[in-house]
Amino acid sequence: MKPLVISAEERAGRRERIEQKVQEAGMEGAVIFSPTSIFYLVGFHFIPTERPMALVLTDGKTTLFVPRLEHEHAETVSDADTVKSYPEYPSELHPMRRLAQLLGELGLRAGKIGVDADGYGSSWGYRGPRLSEVLPEADVVPGVGMWVEEMRMSKSDAEIALIRESCRWGNLAHVLLQRYSVAGAREIDISMRATSEATSAMIDTLGPIYRAAGSASASAGFRGQIGPNSALPHAVTINAILKQGDTLVTGAGADIYGYHSELERTMFVGEPNAEQRRFFEHMLSAQDLAISLIKPGIPCNAIEQEMQRFYKENNLVPYTRHHTGHNIGLQGHEMPFLDLGDETILQPGMLFTIEPGFYVEGLGGFRHSDTIVVTKDGSESLTYYPRQLEDLICGV
Amino acid sequence: MKPLVISAEERAGRRERIEQKVQEAGMEGAVIFSPTSIFYLVGFHFIPTERPMALVLTDGKTTLFVPRLEHEHAETVSDADTVKSYPEYPSELHPMRRLAQLLGELGLRAGKIGVDADGYGSSWGYRGPRLSEVLPEADVVPGVGMWVEEMRMSKSDAEIALIRESCRWGNLAHVLLQRYSVAGAREIDISMRATSEATSAMIDTLGPIYRAAGSASASAGFRGQIGPNSALPHAVTINAILKQGDTLVTGAGADIYGYHSELERTMFVGEPNAEQRRFFEHMLSAQDLAISLIKPGIPCNAIEQEMQRFYKENNLVPYTRHHTGHNIGLQGHEMPFLDLGDETILQPGMLFTIEPGFYVEGLGGFRHSDTIVVTKDGSESLTYYPRQLEDLICGV
Repeated sequence: MKPLVISAEERAGRRERIEQKVQEAGMEGAVIFSPTSIFYLVGFHFIPTERPMALVLTDGKTTLFVPRLEHEHAETVSDADTVKSYPEYPSELHPMRRLAQLLGELGLRAGKIGVDADGYGSSWGYRGPRLSEVLPEADVVPGVGMWVEEMRMSKSDAEIALIRESCRWGNLAHVLLQRYSVAGAREIDISMRATSEATSAMIDTLGPIYRAAGSASASAGFRGQIGPNSALPHAVTINAILKQGDTLVTGAGADIYGYHSELERTMFVGEPNAEQRRFFEHMLSAQDLAISLIKPGIPCNAIEQEMQRFYKENNLVPYTRHHTGHNIGLQGHEMPFLDLGDETILQPGMLFTIEPGFYVEGLGGFRHSDTIVVTKDGSESLTYYPRQLEDLICGV
Repeated sequence: MKPLVISAEERAGRRERIEQKVQEAGMEGAVIFSPTSIFYLVGFHFIPTERPMALVLTDGKTTLFVPRLEHEHAETVSDADTVKSYPEYPSELHPMRRLAQLLGELGLRAGKIGVDADGYGSSWGYRGPRLSEVLPEADVVPGVGMWVEEMRMSKSDAEIALIRESCRWGNLAHVLLQRYSVAGAREIDISMRATSEATSAMIDTLGPIYRAAGSASASAGFRGQIGPNSALPHAVTINAILKQGDTLVTGAGADIYGYHSELERTMFVGEPNAEQRRFFEHMLSAQDLAISLIKPGIPCNAIEQEMQRFYKENNLVPYTRHHTGHNIGLQGHEMPFLDLGDETILQPGMLFTIEPGFYVEGLGGFRHSDTIVVTKDGSESLTYYPRQLEDLICGV
C-alpha cells in the first residue's frame, strides 16, 4: 500500500538543499516560521493560530518549537529530530523569549542566523517581539523563505503525481457541478452537493491511501461568478439563483496531501447568445495561444508580452483584468507568475495555471483555467475537462 | 427586509475612531494592509492573493488601492470614497511603487504615516519592498493594526446579533453531526453530510437576508479528534471510522457576514467507561467554573490563575495543554486570551470561548467549547447545545 504522500526521503533531500545554502551563506543556522515551509520541510501539517511555531535548522539537525498543545502531534507526525514546546501563548514568559533560550542551547545565540521572517506573524491576535530583539547578539538575516519558495517552483515527480491525482477529483467535482447547474438552482446548493458527493467518492476510492493535509475535500463552485456578476474576476459567493442565459465561471480542485490543482470553466445556462459566443471563442483562442507558448527556456514575461499582443490585435485589451497564470502547488498561487514583471525562465517541472480571461460588464466573465506542467520539450495539461463551448452548456 | 450585515453607518463610526487616533498620534494618515481590517473598516470582503491591497485613511477620506481585477468589485461593495487600481502584480512597475505615488497624490509623501505593517505580506509568492523603502521621506510608524484589533475586542450589539445567528446554525450542524455519528461511519462522510445539510437549511431559511463574507456555510466536524487521536487538541482530519467506545471531540460553527462562533462537544460512541466518565465530569466542572468567573472588571489572567488552581487541586495538571479560551469574531481566535500573560480587563461586549480541556493518552480528549458574551453583571452563553454526558452519547 503506497499512500498518496511525499516521502520522508524526499523531504530529507529538501532539507539538505536548504542546509547547504545556509552553510554557503555563512549562517550558523536558520529559523523558519512559515507553516507551509514547515510542512514542506518536515511534513508537519497543523492549524496555525496565535501560538508561534518555528523550525530550527542547525548542524544538520531539525528542532520543532511548538506550543504544548502540539507537542505529541508534532512528535507523531513530523520528521523533526527533536520537538521542544513552551507552555502556551500568551503566557508569563513570551514564547519568543523561550525560543531565544532554545536557540542559545542550540548554539545560535550570536553570528549570522537565517530567517524567513524576523519573528512570528499571525492575524489571530498575536503580539510579540521580533527575533532580532530577543537575540541582540545575533545578525538576523532574511531570505531563507525565498530559498524555500524557489525550491518549490519546480515540482518533483512525486509532487506532480499528487497534483495529477488532485486534477482527477477536481474533474469529478466539476462534472457534478455542471450536472446540477440548471436554471432555478441556487449557487450554494449546487456547489455543496457537488463538493459533498465528489469528496465522498474520493474518500471511498482512495480509502487508506488518502492523507489529508488541508481541507480534505474535492470541491467545485462559482465563487459568485454567476450571470453579470461573473464579470468580477474575484467575486465572492452571492448565492444567486441560476437563470436561463447566465454566463458562469467555475472553479474546482481537490486537496491531495496539501497539493492543489486548478480547473475553471466558462459555462452557460442554456444556449448562449452571439455576444457570449464571441467572447467565449476569443477566450478559447487566447488560452490555446498561451498553452502553445509554454516550453522550457522561455521567460515568464515573454509569454505575457505575447498575450498582450494578441489582446491588442483583437481589440480585447479593455476586457482584460489580470495576468495569464501562476504556479500552483502547496499554495493556490505560487511564484513564478506569467506576467510582465517576472523574468523567471520556465523549466521542466514548473506548473502553471493558464487562465487568460475577458470580463464584459453586463454580459459576464470568460475564463477557463487549466493546470499545465512544463515538460522537457513543451507542456502537458494535467486537467482534462472539456474546453469547447458545445460541452459547456448546462441544463439542456 | 433587514439583511444580516453590519451597517455602513456602524463602519463609518469605526473609521472615525481610528481617524481620531491617527490625528491624536500626529500622523498625516494611515495605510492598512490587513484584509480583515479592510473588511472591518470599509466592508470590502475579497480573496487575498499575491496582489497587494491597501486602505488609505487621510483627511477623513478613504481610498482603496487594489489590483485592476478588483476595481469594479471594490467600487460595488466597499464604502471607500475612492478606488484606485494598479494593472497587476508582478507587473513592470511594482504595486508598492504605484502605492507610493498614490500616497504622494494624497499628501502622504512625508511626515508620520501610521501602518499596520511596513508593507504587504502574503504567502502566495509575493515579493516586494517595504513601505518605508518606497517612502524614504516619511516616518512609517506601526501600531494602527493594534488599534483596530483593540476596537474589535468589544463587540457591538449588531456584531453580537450576527454571532448569535452563527450559534443557531452551528447548533443545527452539530445536531446533525451527532445524529450521523454512529459506529462504522467515517469522519469525512459524517461531517460533509452535516455541513451540507445545515448549510442548505441555513440558506433556505435566511434566503435573501443572508450575506456571505467568508465560507458561506454552517459546518460541523471532528478535525481528526476521534478515539485516542482526540487526545491531540489540534489534530487534523484523519478520516477515521468511528467505533464503539470512541471519545469524540467536535467543532461546529457558521459564517454570518464574516462573523464566527464556536461550539465544541465531547461525545462518546456508545456508553463511555468509568475513566471516560471521570474525565468528562472533571471537564464539565472546569467549564462550569470558568463560566462562573466571567464578569466585567476581572483581568483575563486572573481567570486562568483560578483555573490552574482547580487543575492542581484535582491533580489534573498533567492533562492540560492550553488556555481557557479566546475572543472570537471576524477571526476564529482574537485577542484577548484567557491566559496568564494577558492582563486585559473583561468588559461588556467581549466574547470568549470557554474551553478548558483534558487530554489523556490512549483514552482521548475532553473539551467542550461555548461562546460566551460578557454582560453588564456577568455573562450569557450564546451557544446552547446540551452539555451533559447523557445527552452526548451517540449511536444508541
